[in-house]
Amino acid sequence: MDRNQFMRAAIALAEKNVAEGTGGPFGAVIVRNGEIIGEGTNRVTSANDPTAHAEVVAIRNACEKLGTYNLAGCEVYTSCEPCPMCLSAIYWARLDRIFYGNTKADAAEIDFDDAFLYTEIPKPISERTIPTKQILHDESIKAFRAWAVSEDKIPY
Amino acid sequence: MDRNQFMRAAIALAEKNVAEGTGGPFGAVIVRNGEIIGEGTNRVTSANDPTAHAEVVAIRNACEKLGTYNLAGCEVYTSCEPCPMCLSAIYWARLDRIFYGNTKADAAEIDFDDAFLYTEIPKPISERTIPTKQILHDESIKAFRAWAVSEDKIPY
Repeated sequence: MDRNQFMRAAIALAEKNVAEGTGGPFGAVIVRNGEIIGEGTNRVTSANDPTAHAEVVAIRNACEKLGTYNLAGCEVYTSCEPCPMCLSAIYWARLDRIFYGNTKADAAEIDFDDAFLYTEIPKPISERTIPTKQILHDESIKAFRAWAVSEDKIPY
Repeated sequence: MDRNQFMRAAIALAEKNVAEGTGGPFGAVIVRNGEIIGEGTNRVTSANDPTAHAEVVAIRNACEKLGTYNLAGCEVYTSCEPCPMCLSAIYWARLDRIFYGNTKADAAEIDFDDAFLYTEIPKPISERTIPTKQILHDESIKAFRAWAVSEDKIPY
């Protein structure tokens, strides 16, 4: 699998989450040696866990599978630019690289504006050595659009 | 119970965590209406979860107990100033107020310097409306000192 395919896996998780009504339109996968070894979706409202953002859930999942708290050597593909909590979690987990699809501005447009209005990604984190790249924005945005027209949505 | 007693409960959790070798010298409690309704210690290494900082564990514990993802009306007492991940988690959990004991500089002195060297608490978060107050520093620092002389410590 290549980068685009990993991002598509993250996007598919986001879309599935919306379709199943289990949370917001966010999905993430953790990749090591060209293989997906962890995945997550936003489960804040369905799991009653405000820390259950897609990236955090994916990190926990990968760590559980690998039996480690250190994901050095792994990359995260997330359907949206990480919020400060997730970015810091990525930092603590020692992930090598971040790929994201949608931007926080896209999230704000579908009412996930809360953290995005009040927070900025901490400069010393964003400027340090986690290479970060946006890919497949045109495909990522579809999950957000699906959310925007879904019913009973709670933007957490 | 008053503020000092809640902070002492957080400090006691931190000290117990060191004594039992289950993680770093960090403890936190969530309080609602004068009652502790959630608690947590750093379980990064023992639970293989890089997101299992004391505050995150306490938030998850409180949310599970209350059956909600929204802790508005609650306060967090943490034995150390929250890292950016925890501060953002506190933000997402809608906690009303933060009390902390040790500072990030204290943490750096006992080798938890990693996030503290590279990160700063995001200004737009730290300047917004979560009132934050340091109390009982002289008692909080004891858990850090106990850690500093403990064996087999892993500063995660």
